[in-house]
Amino acid sequence: MNMTKIKTIGVLTSGGDAPGMNAAIRAVTRAGICNGFNIKGIYRGYDGLINGEIEDFTTENVSGIIMSGGTILKTARSGEFMTPEGREEAYRQMIAHGIDALVIIGGNGSLSGAMEFAKEHDICCIGLPGTIDNDLYGTDSTIGYDTTMNTIVECVDRIRDTAQSHERIFFIEVMGRDAGFLAQNSAIASGAEAAIIPEDSTDVDQLARFMERGIRKSKKSCIVIVSESPKCGALYYADRVRKEFPQYDVRVSILGHLQRGGRPSAHDRILASRTGVGAIEAIMQGQRNVMIGVRNNEIAYVPLSEAIRSDKPFDRKLIKVLDELSI
Amino acid sequence: MNMTKIKTIGVLTSGGDAPGMNAAIRAVTRAGICNGFNIKGIYRGYDGLINGEIEDFTTENVSGIIMSGGTILKTARSGEFMTPEGREEAYRQMIAHGIDALVIIGGNGSLSGAMEFAKEHDICCIGLPGTIDNDLYGTDSTIGYDTTMNTIVECVDRIRDTAQSHERIFFIEVMGRDAGFLAQNSAIASGAEAAIIPEDSTDVDQLARFMERGIRKSKKSCIVIVSESPKCGALYYADRVRKEFPQYDVRVSILGHLQRGGRPSAHDRILASRTGVGAIEAIMQGQRNVMIGVRNNEIAYVPLSEAIRSDKPFDRKLIKVLDELSI
Amino acid sequence: MNMTKIKTIGVLTSGGDAPGMNAAIRAVTRAGICNGFNIKGIYRGYDGLINGEIEDFTTENVSGIIMSGGTILKTARSGEFMTPEGREEAYRQMIAHGIDALVIIGGNGSLSGAMEFAKEHDICCIGLPGTIDNDLYGTDSTIGYDTTMNTIVECVDRIRDTAQSHERIFFIEVMGRDAGFLAQNSAIASGAEAAIIPEDSTDVDQLARFMERGIRKSKKSCIVIVSESPKCGALYYADRVRKEFPQYDVRVSILGHLQRGGRPSAHDRILASRTGVGAIEAIMQGQRNVMIGVRNNEIAYVPLSEAIRSDKPFDRKLIKVLDELSI
Amino acid sequence: MNMTKIKTIGVLTSGGDAPGMNAAIRAVTRAGICNGFNIKGIYRGYDGLINGEIEDFTTENVSGIIMSGGTILKTARSGEFMTPEGREEAYRQMIAHGIDALVIIGGNGSLSGAMEFAKEHDICCIGLPGTIDNDLYGTDSTIGYDTTMNTIVECVDRIRDTAQSHERIFFIEVMGRDAGFLAQNSAIASGAEAAIIPEDSTDVDQLARFMERGIRKSKKSCIVIVSESPKCGALYYADRVRKEFPQYDVRVSILGHLQRGGRPSAHDRILASRTGVGAIEAIMQGQRNVMIGVRNNEIAYVPLSEAIRSDKPFDRKLIKVLDELSI
Repeated sequence: MNMTKIKTIGVLTSGGDAPGMNAAIRAVTRAGICNGFNIKGIYRGYDGLINGEIEDFTTENVSGIIMSGGTILKTARSGEFMTPEGREEAYRQMIAHGIDALVIIGGNGSLSGAMEFAKEHDICCIGLPGTIDNDLYGTDSTIGYDTTMNTIVECVDRIRDTAQSHERIFFIEVMGRDAGFLAQNSAIASGAEAAIIPEDSTDVDQLARFMERGIRKSKKSCIVIVSESPKCGALYYADRVRKEFPQYDVRVSILGHLQRGGRPSAHDRILASRTGVGAIEAIMQGQRNVMIGVRNNEIAYVPLSEAIRSDKPFDRKLIKVLDELSI
Repeated sequence: MNMTKIKTIGVLTSGGDAPGMNAAIRAVTRAGICNGFNIKGIYRGYDGLINGEIEDFTTENVSGIIMSGGTILKTARSGEFMTPEGREEAYRQMIAHGIDALVIIGGNGSLSGAMEFAKEHDICCIGLPGTIDNDLYGTDSTIGYDTTMNTIVECVDRIRDTAQSHERIFFIEVMGRDAGFLAQNSAIASGAEAAIIPEDSTDVDQLARFMERGIRKSKKSCIVIVSESPKCGALYYADRVRKEFPQYDVRVSILGHLQRGGRPSAHDRILASRTGVGAIEAIMQGQRNVMIGVRNNEIAYVPLSEAIRSDKPFDRKLIKVLDELSI
Repeated sequence: MNMTKIKTIGVLTSGGDAPGMNAAIRAVTRAGICNGFNIKGIYRGYDGLINGEIEDFTTENVSGIIMSGGTILKTARSGEFMTPEGREEAYRQMIAHGIDALVIIGGNGSLSGAMEFAKEHDICCIGLPGTIDNDLYGTDSTIGYDTTMNTIVECVDRIRDTAQSHERIFFIEVMGRDAGFLAQNSAIASGAEAAIIPEDSTDVDQLARFMERGIRKSKKSCIVIVSESPKCGALYYADRVRKEFPQYDVRVSILGHLQRGGRPSAHDRILASRTGVGAIEAIMQGQRNVMIGVRNNEIAYVPLSEAIRSDKPFDRKLIKVLDELSI
Repeated sequence: MNMTKIKTIGVLTSGGDAPGMNAAIRAVTRAGICNGFNIKGIYRGYDGLINGEIEDFTTENVSGIIMSGGTILKTARSGEFMTPEGREEAYRQMIAHGIDALVIIGGNGSLSGAMEFAKEHDICCIGLPGTIDNDLYGTDSTIGYDTTMNTIVECVDRIRDTAQSHERIFFIEVMGRDAGFLAQNSAIASGAEAAIIPEDSTDVDQLARFMERGIRKSKKSCIVIVSESPKCGALYYADRVRKEFPQYDVRVSILGHLQRGGRPSAHDRILASRTGVGAIEAIMQGQRNVMIGVRNNEIAYVPLSEAIRSDKPFDRKLIKVLDELSI
């Protein structure tokens, strides 16, 4: 497939939904149409591509969606697309529907799938960083991350009211199984006393020291933000602390799914709009298999292989920031 | 103790914290001072009364708190005050601090305690309806209920974004162990498909019929609001549905403590302000052992014994409203 | 037209838009269909009725709108419907489209029009109280009022941050040209220092006394809420105060149109849902020319002639509440 | 004054207040104390420095303020500090209070003053970028900008509800007299149809073309965001359009002061926390007369002279983004 022949662009959302995905769909659709492309909306992520759930999109399809959470294209985690057969079928559907290029809005797993797909079938795949986890390389932030941060901080502000009124210790579990950005930064933003993140080992001794420091200061409530974890989540730490410090009134709050939804923040709408327009521009410039990010306030083209590197650096200075500010 | 001699009024918050309690403390303090009384703030509910954690309050003590959640007086569920000895000690502290009347901001349990206390010691106890549960009799709503309703509805709106994007069934657990007001009304307000409340038995067959109705309509996501319950909460129903309808992607969200906090709504601030001023007026009129409510937009004096009746009527027409609107 | 023959119900929104109108449209539509009626949506208020902008409504037409502000049916203030010829034409359109009964969601002017219409043409008109002004008689509140109150209070909270940081006096103008509910209650809820409302005359001397009181207390910022008024709005009072007290830094903020929009509060969604279901019930019971209100937590049928009485009582005790709490 | 001798740091806020200033005060105070410095809070900006309104700060002074708008230190635009005599007096007060270094949280004017002050008196001045206008050079964003963007977008979302319901054209005026960041980006984020900014000339002909495009598409409402301007603000454009297109229903909304206040967003709290900690670090490293910014997710030291350059580049690609997305 040759760049110069790209006439029809398919757009899909994949993986966990993130606020701002709709703004991104709108931007890809409108910028695409504005520049002479046909746009096709693909429903339910890669599954919908495999099953041919594909529809022509006009500017009206994306009218009034910039402020809504979720994704009008629905989303899924596709098992089938992880197999060569699934991707083969997806390719056949692309051909059948006359789709020359794909814009994939999703996180790490979804962009990995796109890279594999592009390798096998020599097609143009453009990624947009759509994930609340902020774990993609080469972009200052990802679509959804800022909104989720605000949602978490609002929830923690609420819980602090009750924590202080009852003088309790709260362990609040937030998303980010493999990346502590959400936990560490929401702890800083909410004035929490500590964060427990996958990038840093925390033992109960540390927590103990920290609590003793709190007690010396006669603080009587405290909030610890914990990254979700199959084994060592908020419930685990709460149990440990209850056992070793029975004098405390310890509570747990697991924020769960409400972190994903809601009206996107201004930041996420702008990021989605700029990267969506950037995806069309990239296609027009002959770019292939890149993710569109924003770095230092400028649009950046990041090779898919680099975007999904698992080692997005965690800024350890943030640990110092929280540490100094929670005294 | 004689009404004509009341010079000093103590104010405390008790039981679970509710948004608007601070607005109520402010109103009692300012209206009290404005009408020539001395005001004393009592910390940590009845426990603080027993322990003499009591402070003179001026208008400055309550400055800038009308918009904040929680309670600056802290709160607790006092075990000691449930004993005659505890109440005896509380009475001694009142005498020692020169407190002639008490304003108690709290829910069912706290006002029951006040009634008991007033009976034994012939003192003036005025209650303000401070509880998110809305389960007090004789007032159209309670301080905190409206804010909590808005918090829940905001959370459900967020979860709906993700439910629709992934086409999932969500069981969302809200507070209100003994009273379904929060669950039933938040289900109506959020456009949920069903509510499971203590006032109404729900079996899985009913849920099944409802889901089949949904499927016929090709709705693919749905939201059920569940009142918290030690045995039959959201987790219980989710498990049952997963077993009997393995084709569904079923998720659970337990909203938990974040329902208590947050900036009080306009409604709750006004209710707190009006009933707080009303408490001082009631004292000046020689009222004793009443709760100050608002009924039909007018201040109402409700005898404590009536306010805590366990049978606040649940309007069964609300079940019909939800039923007709979730088709 | 006979009640027993009512098969098709038209629904329209009229006058200024109010948050919760969509929830009301949804409730009328779904409860109507659930009870066997045909529902027709009429666009652009009475103008659309006159021009035949009418569409069959199914449950899908009102899907996903419970949480959105504005009105999907659009709205207008119709000059033509104020003439007998206009209403004659509207009646012809009703006949032509087979509409047997009308549900009108609107405020004072819209319900007056409905009453006139019903008198002239012997038809069934049911009103829903849809106005942010809360100036309808016979209902504890109107659809939109609670949301607008929350919006105003949120804005005033924001302005207070800057008022205090700069030690300024702010005159904030809110809606409610003929009714001071919004101004008086938002002043109480936001902890403002004074309110200027149409129901009460305020002269600059009063303001002066109040400011001197403030100065004695060494408060250096203050907030006055002013009902909008063609002559004596916030700008007028700010000018007067600037002239007589040049030492103050006086600012004006006119909240304007943003007071109308936004996601409806839980309260307004429930009020809209209950009264919408109530409208269908009223039709089934043979009621005609009533407004559906909620009084004391119960559905109330209010004759249209009573609902629009211009003298909805203003509770003067609220003036005392604000006065005592702003010391 | 020599870096190695710095023991006491004064902190002040200056110019227009911005949400996040309190988080910055907290960070400077706590990080300072944590690293062994004495911290003094200076009230009312440079005026308070000149008048000696200075207080010792402990960690408790900044407890519970991370989530509040405005500034607990108050702020002012000082005329006196613009004179050499004023700065001379300010210097005397610094000596008298034993202050060795100043942290100034403010915008362009405030940091210019700091630079002048540092030059004349050989002292260490560290700036934090505290302004909603985002017009400082060398930092990706300024403290307050993100919150204000969210506030504006929320207001525009609300106004859109009423614009669409009534099919009106709205001119909405936002802050940013000399810098169009707020207007251009809020237009993108809110899905507005156009922005009028100081960096770009807009004539009524352009607006006309744009509106005709809208009409062809049968959009009947539209929103134009306008940067405030003494001459050519929203009122000016509304008048022009009303004259030339009398068929439109044109309205104006001036958002005004409410753009400054409110709880800071997660982003602004983190930016304030990181730069506040960064200010102390900079002092410890012997930095002088720099502003602490965040560039590309890293702390950056920007010489004050560079930070206040009047030509922070406006990314003209944003004009293209809005243009393509408003089709």
